[in-house]
Amino acid sequence: MADDERAETLADLGEFTVIDRLVEGRVHPPNVLVGPGDDAAVVAAPDGRVVVSTDMLVEGRHFRLDWSTPHDVGRKAIAQNAADIEAMGGAATSFVVGFGAPGATLGADAEALSDGLWAEANTFGASIVGGDLVASPQWVISVTVLGDLDGRPAVLLSGARPGDTVAVVGDLGRSAAGYALLHNGITDFAELRRRHLVPAVPYGQGRVAADAGATAMTDVSDGLLADLRHVADASAVGIDLSRNALGADRDAVAAAAAATGEDPWSLVLGGGEDHALVATFPAAVPEGWREIGVVVEGPPRVLVDGAEWTGQGGWRSF
Amino acid sequence: MADDERAETLADLGEFTVIDRLVEGRVHPPNVLVGPGDDAAVVAAPDGRVVVSTDMLVEGRHFRLDWSTPHDVGRKAIAQNAADIEAMGGAATSFVVGFGAPGATLGADAEALSDGLWAEANTFGASIVGGDLVASPQWVISVTVLGDLDGRPAVLLSGARPGDTVAVVGDLGRSAAGYALLHNGITDFAELRRRHLVPAVPYGQGRVAADAGATAMTDVSDGLLADLRHVADASAVGIDLSRNALGADRDAVAAAAAATGEDPWSLVLGGGEDHALVATFPAAVPEGWREIGVVVEGPPRVLVDGAEWTGQGGWRSF
Repeated sequence: MADDERAETLADLGEFTVIDRLVEGRVHPPNVLVGPGDDAAVVAAPDGRVVVSTDMLVEGRHFRLDWSTPHDVGRKAIAQNAADIEAMGGAATSFVVGFGAPGATLGADAEALSDGLWAEANTFGASIVGGDLVASPQWVISVTVLGDLDGRPAVLLSGARPGDTVAVVGDLGRSAAGYALLHNGITDFAELRRRHLVPAVPYGQGRVAADAGATAMTDVSDGLLADLRHVADASAVGIDLSRNALGADRDAVAAAAAATGEDPWSLVLGGGEDHALVATFPAAVPEGWREIGVVVEGPPRVLVDGAEWTGQGGWRSF
Repeated sequence: MADDERAETLADLGEFTVIDRLVEGRVHPPNVLVGPGDDAAVVAAPDGRVVVSTDMLVEGRHFRLDWSTPHDVGRKAIAQNAADIEAMGGAATSFVVGFGAPGATLGADAEALSDGLWAEANTFGASIVGGDLVASPQWVISVTVLGDLDGRPAVLLSGARPGDTVAVVGDLGRSAAGYALLHNGITDFAELRRRHLVPAVPYGQGRVAADAGATAMTDVSDGLLADLRHVADASAVGIDLSRNALGADRDAVAAAAAATGEDPWSLVLGGGEDHALVATFPAAVPEGWREIGVVVEGPPRVLVDGAEWTGQGGWRSF
């Protein structure tokens, strides 16, 4: 691309030129029956059901363009939505994306965002089948994901039973540690900062959990305690976590916690956005999952080593 | 609701309390297998395919809260998305909605928006199956619609053939006339102003057109000429419209056009957001549809009475 093309803004290019550039040359999997460019897309749903979830990301609130590249923002937007489908025991297959941005946004930045969306979706064989591009005072990205259960029953929040084992796959506390580092302008711990910008979702493990008989599952978006509280409430059970079992996560964030003045346990137990999967199993947990606690009789609550956790909590939207 | 409850803001209430209020007591149709409250919703797709489209509406750009009530905004957001499914020959069945708003937004206004979303969706038996509520400097509403083709082939932009009849169902020019009235502070013509705030989508006519053998279809969102240009481009055909056949639309907006200094033909041919359906038919057009032109050999273009239209065009996003 020539330098003068790089400097072109969305206002210079116009909606349809930008959209043409964003969809041009993209390859869709066979489940996409009608792709972008018509009034709507058509996607195969051979299971006879479709799983659907949506998230909105607002610049300055959910991401900062001085921390994240547009490519990072795209990857994270896809990852956090795909994790919701994993948490149902499904696999994400297709996305539609609404993108609001000022007219002065560079066309190249919109293309980088789109490249990030596609890069993350391609890691699990999915594609972007449609979207909307509008003018907005700041960047707003709205992603809706469609997913496939492939004949499995959906794993809900409400199925945990006393005696089940609580297990997790994927990392905890990394994104919160990365946020603390970025917030404090600390340039060490590159991998943790990276994890805040682009989470490492354990793709495919949702179906693994469903096949292993998971009775309840969610992804860690608001923080382990906050997200397990939703399981406890929906299932009318208590959950007792063991810090012993979370030692590896604590160790992984301990140095960054010390550098930023955070409590490492607050990062591990309260930090969200890693999009690890946490589930309850009546029998053996699948390979690669770590046992971190047990389901006990209600009242609905989440205990840590048998006691109420008094440290820092999770994310607040307002 | 007591006065002190009305004054509560989203920041006062918190995300989960607001969401609880928005989903409480809503009744979903049987196609909703898992509704709001889990990581994702699950919707039946008995056809084995799902139609999907998304739109983003930004305050100050796509709606003004001094013109529209929150209820109006909700209705319009659903209507314009459902129209995209109608334009494929399908019916909208389920929606997910992302809502960004300042923390100072009244909880009652968020409830009114939700009531509007539900009211419009209920008119055709659909429901809101999920959403996301986030903090944003201004209102942003992102709606994604899922639709069902019920065994029909999707009607694309690309199927129009020379000799087909062009026909429309629903009104043209009303929304643009209403916008001109509101923009000029004219308080007459209440019905036209209303149409700008809440379009009257001809629900059900998408399937009627598909059953009548429509070869191409779209909804009038950007303006009749602009939207038919997409059909002309995708189908590699010309389209020739007859103003004679559009006289009723012209007459309906003539007085408002005179009051606002607009050309009534620019409103009818260039005005968007009425979400009428326009389609091409190789045989008889369905009852209630108005023949407004013919498909001719390419090059791709839209003529009016055999000539290029030199009046005002359609909507520009940037």
